[in-house]
Amino acid sequence: VTSIAWLGLGAMGAPMAARLVAGGHEVTAYDVDAARIDQFVAAGGRAAASPAQAAAASDVLAVMVATPDQAEQALFGADGALATRSGPMRCILFSTLGPAWVRSLASRLPAPVGLLDAPVSGGVARAGEGTLLIMASGTPLPEDEELLRELGDPTFVGEKPGDGQAVKMVNQVLCGVHIAAAAEALSLAESLGIDAGLAWDTVRRGAAASFMLDDRGRRMVEGTQGEVRSAVSIFVKDLRLVLDNARTGGLPTPLVAAAEQLFSIAAAQGLAGRDDSELIEVFRGWLR
Amino acid sequence: VTSIAWLGLGAMGAPMAARLVAGGHEVTAYDVDAARIDQFVAAGGRAAASPAQAAAASDVLAVMVATPDQAEQALFGADGALATRSGPMRCILFSTLGPAWVRSLASRLPAPVGLLDAPVSGGVARAGEGTLLIMASGTPLPEDEELLRELGDPTFVGEKPGDGQAVKMVNQVLCGVHIAAAAEALSLAESLGIDAGLAWDTVRRGAAASFMLDDRGRRMVEGTQGEVRSAVSIFVKDLRLVLDNARTGGLPTPLVAAAEQLFSIAAAQGLAGRDDSELIEVFRGWLR
Repeated sequence: VTSIAWLGLGAMGAPMAARLVAGGHEVTAYDVDAARIDQFVAAGGRAAASPAQAAAASDVLAVMVATPDQAEQALFGADGALATRSGPMRCILFSTLGPAWVRSLASRLPAPVGLLDAPVSGGVARAGEGTLLIMASGTPLPEDEELLRELGDPTFVGEKPGDGQAVKMVNQVLCGVHIAAAAEALSLAESLGIDAGLAWDTVRRGAAASFMLDDRGRRMVEGTQGEVRSAVSIFVKDLRLVLDNARTGGLPTPLVAAAEQLFSIAAAQGLAGRDDSELIEVFRGWLR
Repeated sequence: VTSIAWLGLGAMGAPMAARLVAGGHEVTAYDVDAARIDQFVAAGGRAAASPAQAAAASDVLAVMVATPDQAEQALFGADGALATRSGPMRCILFSTLGPAWVRSLASRLPAPVGLLDAPVSGGVARAGEGTLLIMASGTPLPEDEELLRELGDPTFVGEKPGDGQAVKMVNQVLCGVHIAAAAEALSLAESLGIDAGLAWDTVRRGAAASFMLDDRGRRMVEGTQGEVRSAVSIFVKDLRLVLDNARTGGLPTPLVAAAEQLFSIAAAQGLAGRDDSELIEVFRGWLR
């Protein structure tokens, strides 16, 4: 049993934290949205009134917020997890915040806090099943690795915090571009007078196959019925992070640039909070 | 046993025609490159001195050339397959020439020639195994379907020639963009100081998975040793065809536009005849 402070109960954070509760750990959570804390308590978790309170009696500080600003606030703010806390603690960062930010975090943490970089991929369903892909870097204790294995399949891609984030950037290039490619391809079918469902069910069995074509393509064809598994806004954020990091390294990334614009167009058209498969509605709007 | 005239013994045409020879059919082939005809004869096929000669005594005319110009020449040229031929024949078009061109072909064929639209996907390896994805349209005779099944898995996506081509356009959007995304993602890993092979072997097990990431990504990481399975020039051609057809239907396709430019840059840098996985060399050149 590990005592864990969990910061961030969003679409991914909530099922991940609930899974650790179900695994018998003492998980004390904080989120800026009190309703999410109530739901977590109903699921057997413990509530904290601030990140500082969550971290006070915990061995592990798990961070699953969405943006660097949120992470700054949760860690270094007035009632942040590191505001009053002293003594050894391990910080596991599950968020996608980019290699540059995580390297800067590593340099700012007090000495007794060990940092493990552990961004994840796989979506809400796999978060609940504990089968996430975890792109980890750092120097883990054996108990850290055990904890990660309760959430999914950790691959250690480097010894430095930030290396996990770098591989997550690679992952998001592919995921974001594949979703946008599915939207572009299936709306092309519609523009050519071909049923998108028939085209989808044909090409996904060949060289065009991808996880995203199967998963998001199905939702593009069948509709989401308003359900949001992963929001358009996540890819607006993550693809901009990729562009920033690619730019720093001097690498032109024309496909990511085009995909970022498509997700941004979707957001500008009011779809930021909708399921990312609804990106196809941008193309369908152009066909009307 | 069907007597088949086969036009075009390129990277895909040669193994497909050889497979029908192995299936016991009488296959008489023509190609503009005499060396390819010699290789086909060595594999048990018959040689023709012209498309007209190949078609003279055949029930089925199979077309697997690369471009509309080549198809015009092979079918309607001075010694084209339809120059002197009269009487019933079935024409099976395996080439990727776009819906517009195939609809025009349908309207120009003499009445006793039935047209089956049957573009394929899956690459050279699957062509040899007889496991191609075949996106067919038209009104097939039972023996046409049997013939297609010797080459792969035919899905009938419509009754009109051109519908198969439309689904092939959808397929090529995904295949072309997925290859370019793999190149962009793996070179991003390199720009961030992460080993591309490690990043590849990590992300391909998650939501970033695609057939092209597995297949071409491996060749990007391990190298091609000069072997060409499918050339850069194929995607230059096919993505331009997609752009033309999308434009006609009024659909903006920013990802295809970006991917077409990347393959065109590769071609301009002398890689037109190289394996399409070498697209990553364009990005690597930018990192030097």
